[in-house]
Amino acid sequence: MARLSWNRYGKSRVRLVKVRRPRGTMTTGAPGVNDVPHEIVDLTIDVQLEGAFERVYVDGDNSQCVATDTMKNTVYAFARQEAIDHVELFANRLAAHFLETPAVSRVRISAVEHRWDRVSVDGRPHPHAFAQPGGEQWTAVVSRDARSTTIVSGVTNLVVLKTTDSAFSGFPRDHFTTLAETEDRILATSVTASWTYRPGTTDFAARDRIRRALVETFAAHQSRSVQQTLYAMGEAALAACSDVTDITLELPNRHHVLVDLKPFGLDNPNEIFVATDQPFGLIEATIRRSRP
Amino acid sequence: MARLSWNRYGKSRVRLVKVRRPRGTMTTGAPGVNDVPHEIVDLTIDVQLEGAFERVYVDGDNSQCVATDTMKNTVYAFARQEAIDHVELFANRLAAHFLETPAVSRVRISAVEHRWDRVSVDGRPHPHAFAQPGGEQWTAVVSRDARSTTIVSGVTNLVVLKTTDSAFSGFPRDHFTTLAETEDRILATSVTASWTYRPGTTDFAARDRIRRALVETFAAHQSRSVQQTLYAMGEAALAACSDVTDITLELPNRHHVLVDLKPFGLDNPNEIFVATDQPFGLIEATIRRSRP
Amino acid sequence: MARLSWNRYGKSRVRLVKVRRPRGTMTTGAPGVNDVPHEIVDLTIDVQLEGAFERVYVDGDNSQCVATDTMKNTVYAFARQEAIDHVELFANRLAAHFLETPAVSRVRISAVEHRWDRVSVDGRPHPHAFAQPGGEQWTAVVSRDARSTTIVSGVTNLVVLKTTDSAFSGFPRDHFTTLAETEDRILATSVTASWTYRPGTTDFAARDRIRRALVETFAAHQSRSVQQTLYAMGEAALAACSDVTDITLELPNRHHVLVDLKPFGLDNPNEIFVATDQPFGLIEATIRRSRP
Amino acid sequence: MARLSWNRYGKSRVRLVKVRRPRGTMTTGAPGVNDVPHEIVDLTIDVQLEGAFERVYVDGDNSQCVATDTMKNTVYAFARQEAIDHVELFANRLAAHFLETPAVSRVRISAVEHRWDRVSVDGRPHPHAFAQPGGEQWTAVVSRDARSTTIVSGVTNLVVLKTTDSAFSGFPRDHFTTLAETEDRILATSVTASWTYRPGTTDFAARDRIRRALVETFAAHQSRSVQQTLYAMGEAALAACSDVTDITLELPNRHHVLVDLKPFGLDNPNEIFVATDQPFGLIEATIRRSRP
Repeated sequence: MARLSWNRYGKSRVRLVKVRRPRGTMTTGAPGVNDVPHEIVDLTIDVQLEGAFERVYVDGDNSQCVATDTMKNTVYAFARQEAIDHVELFANRLAAHFLETPAVSRVRISAVEHRWDRVSVDGRPHPHAFAQPGGEQWTAVVSRDARSTTIVSGVTNLVVLKTTDSAFSGFPRDHFTTLAETEDRILATSVTASWTYRPGTTDFAARDRIRRALVETFAAHQSRSVQQTLYAMGEAALAACSDVTDITLELPNRHHVLVDLKPFGLDNPNEIFVATDQPFGLIEATIRRSRP
Repeated sequence: MARLSWNRYGKSRVRLVKVRRPRGTMTTGAPGVNDVPHEIVDLTIDVQLEGAFERVYVDGDNSQCVATDTMKNTVYAFARQEAIDHVELFANRLAAHFLETPAVSRVRISAVEHRWDRVSVDGRPHPHAFAQPGGEQWTAVVSRDARSTTIVSGVTNLVVLKTTDSAFSGFPRDHFTTLAETEDRILATSVTASWTYRPGTTDFAARDRIRRALVETFAAHQSRSVQQTLYAMGEAALAACSDVTDITLELPNRHHVLVDLKPFGLDNPNEIFVATDQPFGLIEATIRRSRP
Repeated sequence: MARLSWNRYGKSRVRLVKVRRPRGTMTTGAPGVNDVPHEIVDLTIDVQLEGAFERVYVDGDNSQCVATDTMKNTVYAFARQEAIDHVELFANRLAAHFLETPAVSRVRISAVEHRWDRVSVDGRPHPHAFAQPGGEQWTAVVSRDARSTTIVSGVTNLVVLKTTDSAFSGFPRDHFTTLAETEDRILATSVTASWTYRPGTTDFAARDRIRRALVETFAAHQSRSVQQTLYAMGEAALAACSDVTDITLELPNRHHVLVDLKPFGLDNPNEIFVATDQPFGLIEATIRRSRP
Repeated sequence: MARLSWNRYGKSRVRLVKVRRPRGTMTTGAPGVNDVPHEIVDLTIDVQLEGAFERVYVDGDNSQCVATDTMKNTVYAFARQEAIDHVELFANRLAAHFLETPAVSRVRISAVEHRWDRVSVDGRPHPHAFAQPGGEQWTAVVSRDARSTTIVSGVTNLVVLKTTDSAFSGFPRDHFTTLAETEDRILATSVTASWTYRPGTTDFAARDRIRRALVETFAAHQSRSVQQTLYAMGEAALAACSDVTDITLELPNRHHVLVDLKPFGLDNPNEIFVATDQPFGLIEATIRRSRP
């Protein structure tokens, strides 16, 4: 009574971040060696296959049904082997591969490329720190009663990423600890900052200086932890504007997980990552100006 | 010049699904054995710690800095050991644990519990199929030109889950395949369905019957794959309303990944899962009524 | 060198709420007269037209270009005149109308129908209060330090609406006041509630009773303002569970604006509304149990 | 048994766009007169009041309950009278005003300022065209079967706005038309463009040229309608890259509605707008290269 008249299946929203490091650069995190510019490619990829899959649908016979998990693996393995100079060519290379699958008659590879602009530090493009046009906004909150007025300004959705100069090691290990130590990882976050002006402040154009201090410190910091970088950013913001009495920073740690490519006979020298949304670390602190 | 005046850190959005299976039930997927009701607990948990972490922030000394990854692991390990009859007691148990961490002075555990209602089949609550009040909506599209009118109705965001009677095995293995075969997994999806009425149809109240056929077939099906379940759902919809000429179904496979608890000395008999948002499998097909 | 090879235009996301009141019912808000069940139809409609619009695109000649604002008006005017028993028939009626527009060769009307379930009060369906399966979730927050533990539970995204028994009048009028007084309006909100249990509480199943008290009070209340309804809901929650010391409620006022149909020669006896997302009123308060 | 222990209420998400036009400039849309740079301030404002409102909550007595609608009106009226050089000062001015309300003891004004960067045309900042860092992404779709490969690239979420040089008039008026004609309005949209490359194309870096053509044409065009601007943008894209055979553009018309300030004794010379999300006009078309 019924028949399969059209079908398509595949894996959607495969998140891929590739860090391209020019030949000869090191990734040790040691000062001075990271001055050759890194490049970052940040993609969300969908793989979709059409073909003669009636037996899968009608009979529950999976012998032709390539697992969508395999598609995901293929994307990461190819990403290690391809330059990805143009997303179109990478997508086409994937399409050609999947078209060789038995039963497949048509392949559709969709890619969304997330933009990253190189951060400027002292007017020069930074070699390995990036910002994303991801909905950044200024904020301001005025609270006022009969006796006092408090003005808190800030910035939110300021998305930044650095491809090196970030480590996390030396942390305590208990019965539930499995995380490996690392001396070189991607550090990505969406900064929310809010700072309090001392009463009587009138120079609210200072927000540009504070934002610049936050971004430049994020870029330049040799990070031992998100916490340490947060503190350095807060210190820099206080230094950038003497009218600010304290600053609160919220830094979600948008984990980039190194893909294990060994099952496919490939190494992964800090190059191919999965960008994850959740769970995420969330680091929050208030840095206050000390009274002299 | 600056000092740390407040700090908090932790892991946010830890996704935890626990399937409670009454003592003595089996999970083989064989017909008849799955009639003892399963229960599902679906939580998103945030762990937040406050304490004397100055050395982490100021000195980059991580010796007291429990990794947020360890917090996540702890949630999953505790979930295996606790009944989670009330989310409040589970959160409190976690809070007590983390309060024992050196340097920690205050713990905050936040939990969001996602509601799942048991699906009704033939007026009785189903033992292991659930639906979620997650924004379900009816849809209708009328396309009309001088010669013809096409009416397509549907339902979207119909979120359903079954805790057993779903397998995926026998699929081809190539160089990029790492997925294990499984005879018993969670199957969760957000159904989008749209069906075309034959010209002249007037009984648009049929959508209730079609929706019921979709949900009840999802619940009852012994699934070899999402594809096979999709096809069975489509067949049932066509059987439920003779005015429908074809139905298109989109079933994203919202993967529930079994957590590896072995590092913590625990087994995981299909009980503790991570609910993941992306990547997801996406299965789409059109089932058409055959001309007799 | 270039030519228009395809075009389509229209109005998207026209939000329409129609309240159907059986013949003979009154809408005065007086107790007792509102016992005949109301029905609610809640739609988001897209109108899309294709046709011979080259002169609009190429020459900037708008003489055939029906304004998308006119399409929106047409939807509201038709909604007053049609029963909307089935969204498919309403969409088809709109399609037939727009197909008569000069230059138009094809019309596509898409509708999303937002589900509203009738609220149960004392086990009976309420005549004019509704709830929406819109992502409702339970919440719990445990805060713990060396000396004390605080447990706050709640519910969020509990979307409810009543079609009558809500007024707002007698408010002060200043230089900036333009709002008309009303004795009968739609009241719609997405309840977020969180309540604190006294130390030592163990009966966390009370959340079901509290939720029921909130919903039933919302349904039954003769509302003079969102504030008054909030207070009544809070009182009812405290009465429903003696372990609760206080409850905080956040009630965004999701305004439903009566459409002015006079330009089209139609009246609008509290029947056709625009559901708006923003701006919204936001009413928040904490109700605390008094010491006897 | 219960008492109100804390309360706060107000209006949330008041959307305000102010166009600042330097003294002496005209807004006629005539070529040449619009070369003095405009400035744009784009805010979302929340007003929140605390105070002695027990009688509103407990007794349903609204005599002190300033309508949240009045708060919204006040924001727009003040926006006409204030320069809004710094959002902090504008928020503080509003706070001072609302603190004078009887019963109010504390005011909180929150503002989110949406960033707009001036568009560059020929390397120079444009006087009245702006772009927003709102999540812009590149897209690519490769479709491949045994016989052919199609490569479609694009850009999405490219948010642009111009404060003048946009008109909409001369459209047909029927029974349902109420829209006024305008020779000068804000034109704002989020561009989604996708273009097809001819087979054999290898220069995928062309996307930068195409994006620039889209943005610069949007900025420079004397718009009679969104349709006409769309067509001009498509033509420019085809001219920018000879490898492109066709381009499809989707331009949602993000309406900016002029606020009626007459009730408050104020004029509104194209200066104070409400930015609206829905409904929106949606204009879509494909522009194809003609064969010579």
